[in-house]
Amino acid sequence: MMTEPRQQRAVKTREAIVYAAAHVFDECGYSGASISKIMDHAGVTQGGMYFHFKSKQELARVVMEKQQEFVAFPVGEASLQRLIDLTFFMAHALQTNVLVRASVRLAVEQGEFGKPDPTAYHEWVDQLCFFLYAARERGELLDEVDEREFAILLTGAFAGMQIYSNIATGREDLNERLVAWWKYTLPALAPAHVQAALVMRPYSREQAA
Amino acid sequence: MMTEPRQQRAVKTREAIVYAAAHVFDECGYSGASISKIMDHAGVTQGGMYFHFKSKQELARVVMEKQQEFVAFPVGEASLQRLIDLTFFMAHALQTNVLVRASVRLAVEQGEFGKPDPTAYHEWVDQLCFFLYAARERGELLDEVDEREFAILLTGAFAGMQIYSNIATGREDLNERLVAWWKYTLPALAPAHVQAALVMRPYSREQAA
Repeated sequence: MMTEPRQQRAVKTREAIVYAAAHVFDECGYSGASISKIMDHAGVTQGGMYFHFKSKQELARVVMEKQQEFVAFPVGEASLQRLIDLTFFMAHALQTNVLVRASVRLAVEQGEFGKPDPTAYHEWVDQLCFFLYAARERGELLDEVDEREFAILLTGAFAGMQIYSNIATGREDLNERLVAWWKYTLPALAPAHVQAALVMRPYSREQAA
Repeated sequence: MMTEPRQQRAVKTREAIVYAAAHVFDECGYSGASISKIMDHAGVTQGGMYFHFKSKQELARVVMEKQQEFVAFPVGEASLQRLIDLTFFMAHALQTNVLVRASVRLAVEQGEFGKPDPTAYHEWVDQLCFFLYAARERGELLDEVDEREFAILLTGAFAGMQIYSNIATGREDLNERLVAWWKYTLPALAPAHVQAALVMRPYSREQAA
């Protein structure tokens, strides 16, 4: 009968550590982070930390791998419009959510901790394919479009756009850069009548409600 | 009369240090690099090192800022075809030139050493604009194209494409990804008759000769 609350406490501690780790990784990168900085930020003891995580490397892997979990895109019917909305949602998540920022930074700079692991990128490709396959079913894509090829292109390009935007403006102009991305790729993606019905809308809370 | 050879020696030592630094930054990133690793690699003494560079940070700045110098794109008449060729040339440079790889890695991960500095990105935008303005003069661009907007998009997107390609395949599929990039952006960029004359050709030494 005592195990339930103890388990709940353990889950909360674990979450607090992951959140603190994200803060430190986002600010300092992998090499600049340390277990003691993360412990300080989470307010946990050494015992509490090592019960959950054995090393900085393990923590980095967890933060990086949870990228998809951190991005809670509201449910809706998949389509080309929803794919566009997802990119603006992701921009908003990078601007406002430290967990997303940290996991993306680690996925980009992962050369620093062990072997390169493309999982976070491949998961994005799968996500984007899901929307593109739906768009195909709805007749929204041109014949020449290869869904996976475009998903790979968007995943890589988005990673770089947000890096440049971050270095140049602290990600303030990321929405503007996405508008440019869609301006220069939609003509290869969708017929004119489909394009005409699409809307470029930066994500806002109201929209989600 | 003695100053000439001494100056030459100093220039050679400086070059050797920059090259060694590039090797170490490419392999270990900024945080994983150290002045002593770089000294070992360059085969210079502490005195020799500190005569030229006072800190790891100073070395990183030099390697990052020399990106344009490291990319010796053969001279030729600017056009849309030449812009496409430049992207394949840059892919080849990343695959084969440690100076280019290191400067790009530092430009991406620069959060690690001091204030973010977008200079390396802005220089690429200027370079790309040069080719796009020439393409415009030659009547190769559609009216709706904003040269600078597209140059900013390509600079960011290229940075991310090469990161993903590096993590997934050690940059082996970078040419393939560039072919996809042009497939999905050319319809927004150039009229059909211009597109029809363009060639996607991975860079090779023979081509340069």
